[in-house]
Amino acid sequence: MWNLLTLSKPNSKEDKKLVTAIKTFGGFTPSNLAIYRLATLHTSKAKDIDGFRESNERLEYLGDAILGAAVADYLFKKYPFKNEGFLTEIRSRIVNRESLNNLARKIGIGSIVQYDQRNMQLQKVILGNTLEALVGAIYLDKGYLRCKKFVIDKLIQPYFDLEVVVNSESNHKSKVIEWAQRNAKEIKFEITETKRGRGREFLALVVLGGEMYGQGFGLTKKKAEQNAAEKTCVLLKI
Amino acid sequence: MWNLLTLSKPNSKEDKKLVTAIKTFGGFTPSNLAIYRLATLHTSKAKDIDGFRESNERLEYLGDAILGAAVADYLFKKYPFKNEGFLTEIRSRIVNRESLNNLARKIGIGSIVQYDQRNMQLQKVILGNTLEALVGAIYLDKGYLRCKKFVIDKLIQPYFDLEVVVNSESNHKSKVIEWAQRNAKEIKFEITETKRGRGREFLALVVLGGEMYGQGFGLTKKKAEQNAAEKTCVLLKI
Repeated sequence: MWNLLTLSKPNSKEDKKLVTAIKTFGGFTPSNLAIYRLATLHTSKAKDIDGFRESNERLEYLGDAILGAAVADYLFKKYPFKNEGFLTEIRSRIVNRESLNNLARKIGIGSIVQYDQRNMQLQKVILGNTLEALVGAIYLDKGYLRCKKFVIDKLIQPYFDLEVVVNSESNHKSKVIEWAQRNAKEIKFEITETKRGRGREFLALVVLGGEMYGQGFGLTKKKAEQNAAEKTCVLLKI
Repeated sequence: MWNLLTLSKPNSKEDKKLVTAIKTFGGFTPSNLAIYRLATLHTSKAKDIDGFRESNERLEYLGDAILGAAVADYLFKKYPFKNEGFLTEIRSRIVNRESLNNLARKIGIGSIVQYDQRNMQLQKVILGNTLEALVGAIYLDKGYLRCKKFVIDKLIQPYFDLEVVVNSESNHKSKVIEWAQRNAKEIKFEITETKRGRGREFLALVVLGGEMYGQGFGLTKKKAEQNAAEKTCVLLKI
C-alpha cells in the first residue's frame, strides 16, 4: 500500500514544503514521509496502481476513528463529573464536518493538499478530510500516544475555547424563540417530570402556535428544554 | 471520579468473580480493579455521590470510541487494497449494537454486570453497553496498545469470521428480489455508467413494479447494485 513511496522523488520541492508544514502545525518531524504524502493526496489526483486507486481516503477513514478516540479520551478526563450525553455532544461539536473544515483551513492544510487544480476547485470539505487523513498518518507514523498528544496540544487546545463550545448549547432555545417572534407565533415550553429508574427526568415539549414541535429529555428542566429546542431547530431547518 | 473505590470492599465475593471473569475473557489481570467495577455497574444500581450519579455510562462513551479506533486500525491493515467505503461498512457490521450485544453475551458479561435485579430484567443491550464500558476500562487501566490487542485477539479474531462478515453483503440483493417475488412485483436493476474524476463509476437504480426505489453507487456494477439494494431494504423496511 505504500507504493507511492516509489512514485515521488524524495526531497522534491513538494516534499520539503510538506515537511515544513508538518513541523509548523504539528511540531514534529515525520519519520515516514510517504504516509504523509498519501495523506495529502486527494482522490482527484490519485493514480491507479494495479487497478487500485490510492488516495487519502483510506487514511481519512482511519484518522476519523483515531481523532474520535483522542477527543473522547480528552473530554472524559477533562470533565470527570459530566455524563456521557454531555461528552458525546461536546465531542460532536469539535469533530463535526464544519468544525474540521475550519480547523484545517486555519492550520494551513490548503497549501499542502494535492488535488487536480485544472479540473476542480479546492472545496472546504477537502481540507477537513485531509486533516483527518493526516491524523491517520501521524497515528501510523508515530503511534497512538503521540498522535493523541498532537490532537490535544496542536488542534484542540489552541483552536477550541471549550467554555464557548459548551455554552453554545444555549443558542438553540434563543434561536427557536427568535424564530417564533419573527413569524408571530406563540411559543411555549411544556415541562413534564417523569421517573427514570430511581431518579427523575424531565420531558420538554416545544409548542409553536398550538402545534407540537421538538420533544426533549434531560435530568434538569434546562437540559430538557435545550434538547427540545435543538430538535425543533432541525424540524424548522433553522 | 473513582469514589467507588472506597464504596465496595476489595476482595469481596463480587470482586473475585470479576477478576476471574476478566482473566477468562481478557487473558490478563486487572491492575486497577475499581475501574472495572465501575465498568460493570449499570445505571439502575448506581449511587448518587455528591449529586453525581456514577455508573458505567461514561466508560461506555469512552469504550465506544476506543473500540471504533481499534477495529478501524485492524481492518485498515488487514485490507490494504480495500477502499474506505468497504472498511467503514465492515466496521459497522462488527461494532453495531446487535453484534456487540451478542458478543457480550458470548463472553459472559451477563454474570458480572451489576444491575437492579429486583426492578428490571437484564436486557441484551445492557450487555453490549457493558462490553463497551469494559473496553473503556481496559484502555484506562492498560493503555491503548494493550486494549487494542484485547479487542483484536479476544473479541474480533475468535468471534468474527471476516469472510462471512464481508460476504453477508450479498444478502441485500437477494432480500429485495425475494420481496418482489412475494409481493408479485416486477423487479429491475437499472445500471448507468458515469464518469468520476478520471475514472468511472456505476449508478444502480432499483425499480419495483415501475416505481423507483434505492439508488446506489459503486466502482463495479455489482457494488452499485448491492448499494442500491441495501437502500431499498431500508425503504421497504425489510
